[in-house]
Amino acid sequence: MELQPNIQTKEKPYVIGLDMGGTNSVFGIVDQRGNILSQTVISTKAYPDVNEYVRAGVNALKPLIEEAGGIDNIKGMGIGAPNGNYYTGNIEYAANLLWEGIVPIGKLFEQALGIPCRVTNDANAAALGELTYGVARGMKTFIMITLGTGVGSGVVVDGKVVYGCDGFAGELGHFIVDRSPEARQCNCSRKGCLETYCSATGVARTARLMLEKSDAPSPLRDLDPDQITSFDVFKAAEAGDQIAKDIFNYTGAVLGHACANFALFCAPEAFVFFGGLTKAGHWIMDPIAKAYEEEILGIYRGKAKLLVSTLKGSEAAVLGAAALGWGD
Amino acid sequence: MELQPNIQTKEKPYVIGLDMGGTNSVFGIVDQRGNILSQTVISTKAYPDVNEYVRAGVNALKPLIEEAGGIDNIKGMGIGAPNGNYYTGNIEYAANLLWEGIVPIGKLFEQALGIPCRVTNDANAAALGELTYGVARGMKTFIMITLGTGVGSGVVVDGKVVYGCDGFAGELGHFIVDRSPEARQCNCSRKGCLETYCSATGVARTARLMLEKSDAPSPLRDLDPDQITSFDVFKAAEAGDQIAKDIFNYTGAVLGHACANFALFCAPEAFVFFGGLTKAGHWIMDPIAKAYEEEILGIYRGKAKLLVSTLKGSEAAVLGAAALGWGD
Repeated sequence: MELQPNIQTKEKPYVIGLDMGGTNSVFGIVDQRGNILSQTVISTKAYPDVNEYVRAGVNALKPLIEEAGGIDNIKGMGIGAPNGNYYTGNIEYAANLLWEGIVPIGKLFEQALGIPCRVTNDANAAALGELTYGVARGMKTFIMITLGTGVGSGVVVDGKVVYGCDGFAGELGHFIVDRSPEARQCNCSRKGCLETYCSATGVARTARLMLEKSDAPSPLRDLDPDQITSFDVFKAAEAGDQIAKDIFNYTGAVLGHACANFALFCAPEAFVFFGGLTKAGHWIMDPIAKAYEEEILGIYRGKAKLLVSTLKGSEAAVLGAAALGWGD
Repeated sequence: MELQPNIQTKEKPYVIGLDMGGTNSVFGIVDQRGNILSQTVISTKAYPDVNEYVRAGVNALKPLIEEAGGIDNIKGMGIGAPNGNYYTGNIEYAANLLWEGIVPIGKLFEQALGIPCRVTNDANAAALGELTYGVARGMKTFIMITLGTGVGSGVVVDGKVVYGCDGFAGELGHFIVDRSPEARQCNCSRKGCLETYCSATGVARTARLMLEKSDAPSPLRDLDPDQITSFDVFKAAEAGDQIAKDIFNYTGAVLGHACANFALFCAPEAFVFFGGLTKAGHWIMDPIAKAYEEEILGIYRGKAKLLVSTLKGSEAAVLGAAALGWGD
């Protein structure tokens, strides 16, 4: 026994994080403190065959792994991918990827690299990123809300992401907030989902409706109504435009009320918001807080913090995926 | 070391469960298979001083503990109490108990009996009861919904009740299902809570509204509108009354839609319903299932079972509290 070097107990210092989008895939090598040592990008959509994709990814990673001292220094790999299933390691029926049906992405990278490889969707990865490297460090229970093209979420209970019976728990973007006949149509084929109000396209939709309803002058009228972004609305609000402020007030109210309902589940320590809409700062965060405080059930009042992610937008997704690489 | 008998590793075969209500407190001694060996009842409201209450409870328990072979045969005690906090073992500001403020009920019984004593609220205890002894045995993730005077809930994730940051998670009875001006007033001072539709009083309220809105004959018209129970509505439905069926259809739709939203959190294997309303059988369960299937997000369709508790109503609460006595 004494002759055998104790290599098993030596802490491996790095993990690989893969943030897979429909267009690009970003790989990063990350240490325990959340420093990204090195990063590389390949095109996701250039590889209609997933085996080719994995080969290209591993080739792109090789010099980075060398630089990190070889694969023995890498504890594992985490992948944040559309419809990524934590339990199976598969991507299942992702609409915005070229690969159809069920793709065993975790297994493919595991075989190619010889290290454990875990998979989840991007919003769950984001929650893990906050828990491991971000504003939720040390928290037991919080809800991550990602505000992008869609609205994603990751629910953390007792320090672990909730994956549910099927690996797909935490789809709060499809929480139905409106059952009236005027409820907005969602891509999921249902109506009134949170996502139709609080995603980038939801905000643009609100902007169009508010501009139509009013005659007040607004710099937003100079823009193509179909192209209005939450950044445009932010600039207008900063310039004092009332319609822009109304757009954020409305969006924040919908989100704050939804969060007050979410709190009933797990009495979270915090909600962590991430994504484009949060760049509007107090214009969006104040209405969220106001609506939340207005509606939160008495016993929970004042308990949950409403936080904005402090991870850099360009790094957050890779850090989230990387966090998964450390394992339990 | 060899001289010391190995008593610590001997499995203690029983626990004590205490189901504390505003009126009565039921104590039971329970084994690992959910058999209630013996049971005793004291009045809760007869003891304005909680120390007197604990003394009376322990006195009532003494012969039962003797019968079970003494306190060394009891692993622990679980208490299901209004506003019971799992983390602190306290009852905190329970409106329907005589004791005001914060009451260290767990500590008091622990000191009096010399065994570990855990506390939670009745709905969380009910969830534990199903997990340990009922239809949710072996499940990792499910949502318990108790339909009584109010609507309570317990959320189980990874085989554990979710208590949240404060010990009070899982208040789905106060999930806001209606934000319209017509939303019903709730006792919590807010409007539109699930409880105002699906509790016993909620069903009675629906009955009154439906009877007012229609001219159709109904056996429910013979009753005092303020006293209509879900059992009355059940009897009328069984007799073929359309208004009674409409009441259950409406109530089930509200509950089924709410559950479709709840599923987004934790992708549960099941919803377990308990309480008076479930006695209406298919009259209420079919509309719940229809509304749930109608509205559940595609990826979750067909995954969660909608179950009714099979624990006897009179035993369920004690079994739920007892389940807590086994510890983690």
